[in-house]
Amino acid sequence: MKGIDILWVVFASVLVFLMQAGFLCLEGGMTRSKNSINVAIKNLADFCLSTLVFWCFGFGLMFGVSYQGWLGVDLFALDFASAPPALTVFFLFQVMFCGAAVTILSGIVAERMKFGGYLFVSFVVAGILYPIAGHWTWAGLGGSSGSGWLADLGFVDFAGSTVVHSVGGWAGLALVLIVGPRLGRFGHESGRRAITPSNMPTATLGALLLFIGWLGFNGGSTLALDDTVPAILVNTVIGGCIGAISAGGLSYAVNQRLDVDQFINGALGGLVAITANCFAVSTGSAALIGLVGGMIVVFFSRILETLKIDDAVGAIPVHLGAGMWGTLATGLYGDLDKLGTGLSRFEQIAVQGLGVLVYGVWTFGLAFVIFYTGNSVLRFRVSEEAEIAGLNISEHGLQHESELQSPTELVLGKVG
Amino acid sequence: MKGIDILWVVFASVLVFLMQAGFLCLEGGMTRSKNSINVAIKNLADFCLSTLVFWCFGFGLMFGVSYQGWLGVDLFALDFASAPPALTVFFLFQVMFCGAAVTILSGIVAERMKFGGYLFVSFVVAGILYPIAGHWTWAGLGGSSGSGWLADLGFVDFAGSTVVHSVGGWAGLALVLIVGPRLGRFGHESGRRAITPSNMPTATLGALLLFIGWLGFNGGSTLALDDTVPAILVNTVIGGCIGAISAGGLSYAVNQRLDVDQFINGALGGLVAITANCFAVSTGSAALIGLVGGMIVVFFSRILETLKIDDAVGAIPVHLGAGMWGTLATGLYGDLDKLGTGLSRFEQIAVQGLGVLVYGVWTFGLAFVIFYTGNSVLRFRVSEEAEIAGLNISEHGLQHESELQSPTELVLGKVG
Amino acid sequence: MKGIDILWVVFASVLVFLMQAGFLCLEGGMTRSKNSINVAIKNLADFCLSTLVFWCFGFGLMFGVSYQGWLGVDLFALDFASAPPALTVFFLFQVMFCGAAVTILSGIVAERMKFGGYLFVSFVVAGILYPIAGHWTWAGLGGSSGSGWLADLGFVDFAGSTVVHSVGGWAGLALVLIVGPRLGRFGHESGRRAITPSNMPTATLGALLLFIGWLGFNGGSTLALDDTVPAILVNTVIGGCIGAISAGGLSYAVNQRLDVDQFINGALGGLVAITANCFAVSTGSAALIGLVGGMIVVFFSRILETLKIDDAVGAIPVHLGAGMWGTLATGLYGDLDKLGTGLSRFEQIAVQGLGVLVYGVWTFGLAFVIFYTGNSVLRFRVSEEAEIAGLNISEHGLQHESELQSPTELVLGKVG
Repeated sequence: MKGIDILWVVFASVLVFLMQAGFLCLEGGMTRSKNSINVAIKNLADFCLSTLVFWCFGFGLMFGVSYQGWLGVDLFALDFASAPPALTVFFLFQVMFCGAAVTILSGIVAERMKFGGYLFVSFVVAGILYPIAGHWTWAGLGGSSGSGWLADLGFVDFAGSTVVHSVGGWAGLALVLIVGPRLGRFGHESGRRAITPSNMPTATLGALLLFIGWLGFNGGSTLALDDTVPAILVNTVIGGCIGAISAGGLSYAVNQRLDVDQFINGALGGLVAITANCFAVSTGSAALIGLVGGMIVVFFSRILETLKIDDAVGAIPVHLGAGMWGTLATGLYGDLDKLGTGLSRFEQIAVQGLGVLVYGVWTFGLAFVIFYTGNSVLRFRVSEEAEIAGLNISEHGLQHESELQSPTELVLGKVG
Repeated sequence: MKGIDILWVVFASVLVFLMQAGFLCLEGGMTRSKNSINVAIKNLADFCLSTLVFWCFGFGLMFGVSYQGWLGVDLFALDFASAPPALTVFFLFQVMFCGAAVTILSGIVAERMKFGGYLFVSFVVAGILYPIAGHWTWAGLGGSSGSGWLADLGFVDFAGSTVVHSVGGWAGLALVLIVGPRLGRFGHESGRRAITPSNMPTATLGALLLFIGWLGFNGGSTLALDDTVPAILVNTVIGGCIGAISAGGLSYAVNQRLDVDQFINGALGGLVAITANCFAVSTGSAALIGLVGGMIVVFFSRILETLKIDDAVGAIPVHLGAGMWGTLATGLYGDLDKLGTGLSRFEQIAVQGLGVLVYGVWTFGLAFVIFYTGNSVLRFRVSEEAEIAGLNISEHGLQHESELQSPTELVLGKVG
Repeated sequence: MKGIDILWVVFASVLVFLMQAGFLCLEGGMTRSKNSINVAIKNLADFCLSTLVFWCFGFGLMFGVSYQGWLGVDLFALDFASAPPALTVFFLFQVMFCGAAVTILSGIVAERMKFGGYLFVSFVVAGILYPIAGHWTWAGLGGSSGSGWLADLGFVDFAGSTVVHSVGGWAGLALVLIVGPRLGRFGHESGRRAITPSNMPTATLGALLLFIGWLGFNGGSTLALDDTVPAILVNTVIGGCIGAISAGGLSYAVNQRLDVDQFINGALGGLVAITANCFAVSTGSAALIGLVGGMIVVFFSRILETLKIDDAVGAIPVHLGAGMWGTLATGLYGDLDKLGTGLSRFEQIAVQGLGVLVYGVWTFGLAFVIFYTGNSVLRFRVSEEAEIAGLNISEHGLQHESELQSPTELVLGKVG
């Protein structure tokens, strides 16, 4: 591995790390301030935990020597001081990806899960669900022998529309079904107060940081600074921009005002959609893929709403919805030479569809079983009192300063 | 283009992208919370829109084959999948510059413009004003044949004190004259409540992010990682730091306390001032240029105040005021060999002055005409009721959680 | 210096610059909103001032030709336009380090110091304490002849557990002893309101930005993109992650709930601890070093509490406590070949201990003398009234918008 390629992957890793900050802002801004400390610290904690888990065994399961294309069987708890630099920098990049996959869940089930339960979930995603599923498509990328069974069939997912984003989305869907909606989210009384985000400017900042980080997410997936990098980056930028315009425009057409969270999530949907195929499509196709990606976010949000599935930040539409689309779009619009699978257009589309299906069945199925079991032991959900009081106080004994200085207290004087 | 140069320009592009996050924080923090969602989403939206516009035709107008040095006539809606990597990465860098130029306006006219009107403005800046003006100085940078007529005269503006910053400032000045000051900004009653920024720490964070991003803005303008880069970066850092100290010190001398927004804008003024000339001046000159840049921000703010021009975040002093100074300073202090125009010191100063004048007349004049016309059709300004209620609620139907839980409601109980 | 090494150091410099934004968020979030503007602007101001001071003479004292290993005697106020690019980029990196060392103090003594007094402190740290102390270990790094007397003894501190972090911590300790605790911090009345952080999500974001920046802090200290970089980065990530888990777990064991600030500071403690030795330890050792680093943060916090030393953000435990540990750990776990001092394990441990002692005596001692003298002239501390009112209003005449719209005013109507 040449120095410039190492530098490129290091830079990309830093950008993907920055996405963690983006998720923190996005999720903290879209949820209520009584839970925001909990939301923020979960973002940092899942990164820290999943990094250690991925180092100990996730990385080996995902990128170790392949056992029949199903999982890796070495590279556990590596000592990188004596590993080849190329493998070490690859680990650095991949551990950031793992953090991103895990963090997707934190937003979906925000504002109602115990901290301990969430750590269990992070452990499962980082140590089992994500690395094994990832092996099927990405085995061998780090230089180990063998390849994944889905990759052998011709399944292509360049930077992870499915491998990272849909996997996170499917696992989150399983989890939210078990944990249930937040109190009051789907109340029938018309006078019931809707759940209001605490800070949409912070959420917008988060979306921007995610967007910036995505340049590393997609660009770095080349694992080398070659001539394809600039076009990958431009496709990524175009996909994200048009996703925002598309979702924003669609929601404007319906509501006659710019729906801020749809605009934000549209950008992210466009980015997710372009993730699988950014290396193999024209700029025009990138625009189309982002356009549809943004619309899918809007439609998917409606569907979840109708099904009374309470995704606190709209991450399922973004990561699962647009992720499936992007994976299919790889078959539909990808340059067959660049995909390099030797399949015909029709075969490629079919195998992309198969991949979407397989990842859905595996991730949702296994996640549901494990989370269901975990929930019966650990009781993921906080008590009703704790949820009403907010997780800042119930989980961490903390309130914002502004909550302490309550108006009542200020006007009437402190009691006691 | 060598790999390392591609990597450098990619890195610089990411840093300029980060400036978008900086602008978001700066503008959101300096304005009132009742408008902050609107401010934030405008920052993301103008980036998304201007990127698409710049791809479709702005880039071609600015960097296509030159028609007599006045505008470019190809490179519209390029497919970057089949373009040379050097051109693609150049586009990536330039599209981020375009976003920066557009976003300058958003702060100036914050808290009173309709979202739709602002999109129109973004379209005009990204698609017409900025790229055509830019062509006159920067044509040919991307490799197309021909050069701009101002560049041919010897006008030098390395990274855009004028081409980006003054253009944004001039267009913003035209716009703010049409849109008018915010309600209550220049009221005569002494008891009238001043307009208070919602969150100066966030604004300070924004200034820091802008400062960081500026290293890419100036450093990347080499378009290659050559031996000039380190000195460019150090000059940039010195210019920004001394601009802050200078504006802060000047306002301290007047008010006997540190004026936080002058300190922040002084840093930005120093950065704008050093942008045109950072490649061609000594570190000592950089310090002087930044020093004066910071002072100009303070003086320019006073002038706007006196003229009752309501620039909500002080962006005109920063981008227009310090931008003109930096452009002139290029003639005054630039190493003539490094400028490489073959002009004498006096001629160089004259042509720099001419450039400042030309850009002012063109940008302000055309912007005024287009915005005036647009305003008579679209009515840029929100209604008085909407402005009092805040643009969060009037434009997006959203309020901060803290606004919903009004003290009255908490103390007296929710009515109804 | 090869292009790729220049690019690497530039990139690392940008990341260390980003740490300034991290400190701003961390300190602003952990302190009260009535002081947050002051906290934020101090972060920007100390960077600006210390950059100028470091350029004028700090850099020369630290990296100029060595006078007997005690201090440098040239490279003052360099003109980088005519300096070698390698020296210029080295300055860029080091000036960011200087900013980090200075900023450590701002958090410790937040919420009670006058702005002018804090500028004096920044000047002293950037111009005297930090560069002279740094010379003893790092002289010669920039290419000047001579080496520091501690380095000659075999003292190793790769990226500055002691040279940057402990120095900042010791100076901060001296300062906090002179300035004293915040009003009410150690009051005896049980009913006294504790000091509540204004915004822990922002503090968590700050920790993440610091973590990201640390990759440049440690990785860039190679000053070249060589094969050791990837392992340095992975060690850094592992150290930080396990520090968070360790401090969080320890405080959980004690309090039965996740202590958010201990979790955050644990991550930073792990990062500080790995800073001195990340180039010379195995990944397993990195985990151990981070683990202990996190615990030290928790213990050190208790000690400060017991001694009634009021460190507003817990920076002394992080930077001084974990810094000393990391420096000793370099002797305990560092690969002797990679340390390259020719000392035996025992000798290496001894000289690391000596370094810890020497830096403590020098920095604390001199800082105490200078700050004590400065304080008797400038009166560092704000008045009691100003401290109660908050430094936003007393130092800058600013309040947050939310403070202006006080509940009383909203409920009862504005008086007057």
